[in-house]
Amino acid sequence: MRFLNRPRDDAGANETRGGRAVARAGARPGAGNRLYNFSAGPATLPLDVLEEIQRDLVDYKGSGMSVLEMSHRGKDYMAIAEKAEKDLRELVGIPDNYKVLFLQGGASTMMASNCHNLAAATDSADFVVTGAWSVKAQKEGAKMLAKANVIASSKDQSFTTIPDVKDWKFTEGSKFVHICSNETIGGVEFKEVPDVGNRVLVADMSSNYLSKPIEVEKYGIIYGGVQKNIGPAGMGIAIVREDLMGNTRADTPSMFDYKLMADNDSMYNTPPCFTWYVSGLVFAKLLKDGGLKAMEQRNIEKANVLYGAIDGSGGYYVSPVDTKYRSLMNVPFTLAGGEELEKKFLAEAKAEGFEALKGHRSVGGARASIYNAMPKEGVEALVSFMKDFQARNA
Amino acid sequence: MRFLNRPRDDAGANETRGGRAVARAGARPGAGNRLYNFSAGPATLPLDVLEEIQRDLVDYKGSGMSVLEMSHRGKDYMAIAEKAEKDLRELVGIPDNYKVLFLQGGASTMMASNCHNLAAATDSADFVVTGAWSVKAQKEGAKMLAKANVIASSKDQSFTTIPDVKDWKFTEGSKFVHICSNETIGGVEFKEVPDVGNRVLVADMSSNYLSKPIEVEKYGIIYGGVQKNIGPAGMGIAIVREDLMGNTRADTPSMFDYKLMADNDSMYNTPPCFTWYVSGLVFAKLLKDGGLKAMEQRNIEKANVLYGAIDGSGGYYVSPVDTKYRSLMNVPFTLAGGEELEKKFLAEAKAEGFEALKGHRSVGGARASIYNAMPKEGVEALVSFMKDFQARNA
Repeated sequence: MRFLNRPRDDAGANETRGGRAVARAGARPGAGNRLYNFSAGPATLPLDVLEEIQRDLVDYKGSGMSVLEMSHRGKDYMAIAEKAEKDLRELVGIPDNYKVLFLQGGASTMMASNCHNLAAATDSADFVVTGAWSVKAQKEGAKMLAKANVIASSKDQSFTTIPDVKDWKFTEGSKFVHICSNETIGGVEFKEVPDVGNRVLVADMSSNYLSKPIEVEKYGIIYGGVQKNIGPAGMGIAIVREDLMGNTRADTPSMFDYKLMADNDSMYNTPPCFTWYVSGLVFAKLLKDGGLKAMEQRNIEKANVLYGAIDGSGGYYVSPVDTKYRSLMNVPFTLAGGEELEKKFLAEAKAEGFEALKGHRSVGGARASIYNAMPKEGVEALVSFMKDFQARNA
Repeated sequence: MRFLNRPRDDAGANETRGGRAVARAGARPGAGNRLYNFSAGPATLPLDVLEEIQRDLVDYKGSGMSVLEMSHRGKDYMAIAEKAEKDLRELVGIPDNYKVLFLQGGASTMMASNCHNLAAATDSADFVVTGAWSVKAQKEGAKMLAKANVIASSKDQSFTTIPDVKDWKFTEGSKFVHICSNETIGGVEFKEVPDVGNRVLVADMSSNYLSKPIEVEKYGIIYGGVQKNIGPAGMGIAIVREDLMGNTRADTPSMFDYKLMADNDSMYNTPPCFTWYVSGLVFAKLLKDGGLKAMEQRNIEKANVLYGAIDGSGGYYVSPVDTKYRSLMNVPFTLAGGEELEKKFLAEAKAEGFEALKGHRSVGGARASIYNAMPKEGVEALVSFMKDFQARNA
């Protein structure tokens, strides 16, 4: 595995800060000036994937065209699209009775289209609410369904934990059970697939897609945007159990109809070709790098480094999340010293080349998103900076 | 204006054919091997735009990040997004009472969302049917509305013309009138904005967006995918009169709500950032190249070269389209010699580096899409090939 470059060491700490400012004004310090990007999404991509995209950008493998301008019906692009699906199926181990759909509109759109595919307007569904994204899914469900039942919620714990599945109050006759497998903002993550019996489990996996093995057969629909753990923004991937398709409503928008999409290999209309292509490069890389078990191992190691630093700071840095459900992907933390100190921390971190560490505006503090493409070196560099900051501002 | 390169002349005709085959097998003949890509979409992009994308791909202007991985809330990306909208507004001359929306899902999605924004489920709307895309819009309307009235159609003329607006049978109380300003498959194009009185005119401009000046104030909604005349696939642009927003239904998906999108500067969810960025580069280029009047002039010149060759071929090549409504963008034509000769023509054209000339499977024959980014040299080269082919196969 090839890791990202740090900002050039020979620039010196002060010059690195200055260099960043100069860079923004138009200077080009070269590829060595690569930041550690902790953005929650769109998020950092593997450098070798970016370099491959760059190399092939104007003339894709001697085709005489860029992928940006290829017909999605042409042989060159069809090969790209098919390989991406094949690699994803191999990577995840997707059973034959599940369709893979490459869709537009992100998870926000699929929150609505899931309802149109699984339920009539007179039906209800169950929602487990563990943070901002599952709240959003429930609200969208309430628009699309007769009733969107909140059957469990950690709202009273400020979304810092996940209610035990034994306490979920399933509703008789509801059409599906919705969870968000990892809450990007709150930083809580399901550690096991909840046992919902023979109910249809639907999971928004946007922010931990492909970060660890997925037990596909336990779900009815797995869905999510790719812009966090997979590729650039502009595409979602749904993995849908075949028998759940084909029951849309009379007024279901065609673009929401999963069966129509599956029957057209996700090309009922022109798909987001370039995003599909980049995602395919990432699938191939993940396969090469050992697959999802290897990714999980690396992600655990990275998370341990960061949570270890937080827990070992003597209370200087604070993780608000229930240790049982701490996300391997999104690590929110605060500084016990208060808001002014947090501001200083974030400003200095940014100047040092740690990008997008600011916590979501709804919760404040800091947040480090450490998706698959964030190298362990990036987390170690951040931890080193955190320790140094603490020493200087004890 | 910088034009695309032809396949290298020094390779010789036969070698060019061989080079193409070799190129597909993995060899890289270099950037000089750029094809003339006549695809109907995704479609050819300006070479200088592709080269700029390539240059900045790994490290966008010294930011230390690729545009593919930047947070859409960060300063670098916000500047890209804002400049794109500003340039588009200047390019088109969009009045202040119109909002510009950058949306996902393409025109196919907007065929549904337009209905949700402009009409209740109990309302009706009027559709003028002039080809495959307006048929599709009408069918989608029929799902979203109580009634989707076909108020004029050229179906009986095999969609080779456009019914005169004087003969359109407007329906009392219908909420809008829908047209497709240019039919990509049939190759018919409105030459003037039809006078629909004070009715709300909605136009799908996917395949002639920005190819000529647009009288925005004559429309309620202008919409279309960008993957033909603007940028890569994966984004649509809607230009919506402000007073038409804010009346969605109780069960309108949030992502369909134009007011919600406008209030969030098209970032209610994560937008298709990279496609937005590339589109912005194209807007800037069009401004630099003289704006939409200059584009129209060039597009007229290009179309004249191609239609002139067809009409001057003594009936060897045939344009099926009513001369009054011939598209400047998509030029379908057949060979009077029949299907076998067409196959030979298409195979030889492809071998010579003319990409994607095959007509849509629903109509057969050939089709040359000559969008903004197709240089006049490309059309001239095609015409030269056509004459040569005719001489060899008279």
